[in-house]
Amino acid sequence: KTEDIKETINLTFRILGQPCNLYPLENYSFGTKGPKYEKDVSALARNKRMEENYNRDGMRRVVEGLLLVHNHGHPHLLLLQIGGSYFKLPGGRLRPGENEIDGLKRKLTSKLGADAQYKEYQVDWEVGELVSCWWRPTFEKGEYPYIPPHITKPKECRRQFLIHLPDKCFFAVPSNLKLLAVPLFELYDNPQRYGSVIATLPTILSRFKFNYV
Amino acid sequence: KTEDIKETINLTFRILGQPCNLYPLENYSFGTKGPKYEKDVSALARNKRMEENYNRDGMRRVVEGLLLVHNHGHPHLLLLQIGGSYFKLPGGRLRPGENEIDGLKRKLTSKLGADAQYKEYQVDWEVGELVSCWWRPTFEKGEYPYIPPHITKPKECRRQFLIHLPDKCFFAVPSNLKLLAVPLFELYDNPQRYGSVIATLPTILSRFKFNYV
Ligand SMILES: [Zn+2]
Ligand SMILES: [Zn+2]
Ligand SMILES: [Zn+2]
Ligand SMILES: [Zn+2]
Repeated sequence: KTEDIKETINLTFRILGQPCNLYPLENYSFGTKGPKYEKDVSALARNKRMEENYNRDGMRRVVEGLLLVHNHGHPHLLLLQIGGSYFKLPGGRLRPGENEIDGLKRKLTSKLGADAQYKEYQVDWEVGELVSCWWRPTFEKGEYPYIPPHITKPKECRRQFLIHLPDKCFFAVPSNLKLLAVPLFELYDNPQRYGSVIATLPTILSRFKFNYV
Repeated sequence: KTEDIKETINLTFRILGQPCNLYPLENYSFGTKGPKYEKDVSALARNKRMEENYNRDGMRRVVEGLLLVHNHGHPHLLLLQIGGSYFKLPGGRLRPGENEIDGLKRKLTSKLGADAQYKEYQVDWEVGELVSCWWRPTFEKGEYPYIPPHITKPKECRRQFLIHLPDKCFFAVPSNLKLLAVPLFELYDNPQRYGSVIATLPTILSRFKFNYV
């Protein structure tokens, strides 16, 4: 009996493609909240801070969320834009010992949720499938979708999860950032504009069976 | 009770990463069988045949298998090489109405299985997770990990599945092809040599938790 259920779930979820409901962009509303600044003023300051944190806490663990909507039947990914050029997914660093699901929910609320006093606007984030992992072997630039050969102590692991959005909700966007809904066909094969990690997301998402609700 | 089992499977398989056992390359043995030639002598002949097939059978459905092994702890993908340059995954076209799991098993046996008279060498292929899908909007070159905007009748859909290999088995390689075990770090970001589809497989596979048995 248990075996039958497992088998059915395997066939449905593992092989035939994971179903995922997408709701229209116009179902969601957007407002502004106080700014969320980056912690570092320069790449050098960032490397220094990462090294100090590594020595204290071990490997840096980052989690990010893929929030998808549709616009007349095309899937769109929600991206934060900083300073008119750099794009990133909502997410951030886990605290030492923090569970990744809890940490990702905390980060999504910090980046896109209404401030705590607006209880009726809080989103109950549903963290879904792990879609990809990236490892950083050194504190400098350069990450790989595997632990490179003969690296025993990677400095960062970044894990990206699909977020199953409710059919409607409110996003509060930090005033120094923009939130954009970018179609997957615009991201595909466009690392010049979006960076090599975000540009591969359309390919990584191709296994999902999106339902345009 | 059923809900509990579902929830556990969800957490294990959907979120924490799909486990996948890899066995060492030296567990597998390799032999030769008769040649398997490509059906077309030119790209023009191929386009013509694809168009004829499309008019008769509808969208071409292709399935391919990712066969993974490890070599001193690094995951390697098994690739067929044709004529010293072009690389492809084992697989091929489904027959009209054929189930994709059955069709992929048939194609894997045709490309890499022992001839039918060697019963003790047959592999019982275990088709696992769908990892990616590619669509071809026209008969010419060019495929995308989504159906491009306003394309209502894609000409081909290619679906790639992870194959869970037994701990040991025998592969019979067509005499006109080579079978190579290529490390994922060699494929990554190397579309010049392996083509853009194969070069993204390391990223697509990053969500799996490989166990080196
Ligand atoms: Zn979903
Ligand atoms: Zn090595
Ligand atoms: Zn496996
Ligand atoms: Zn459109």
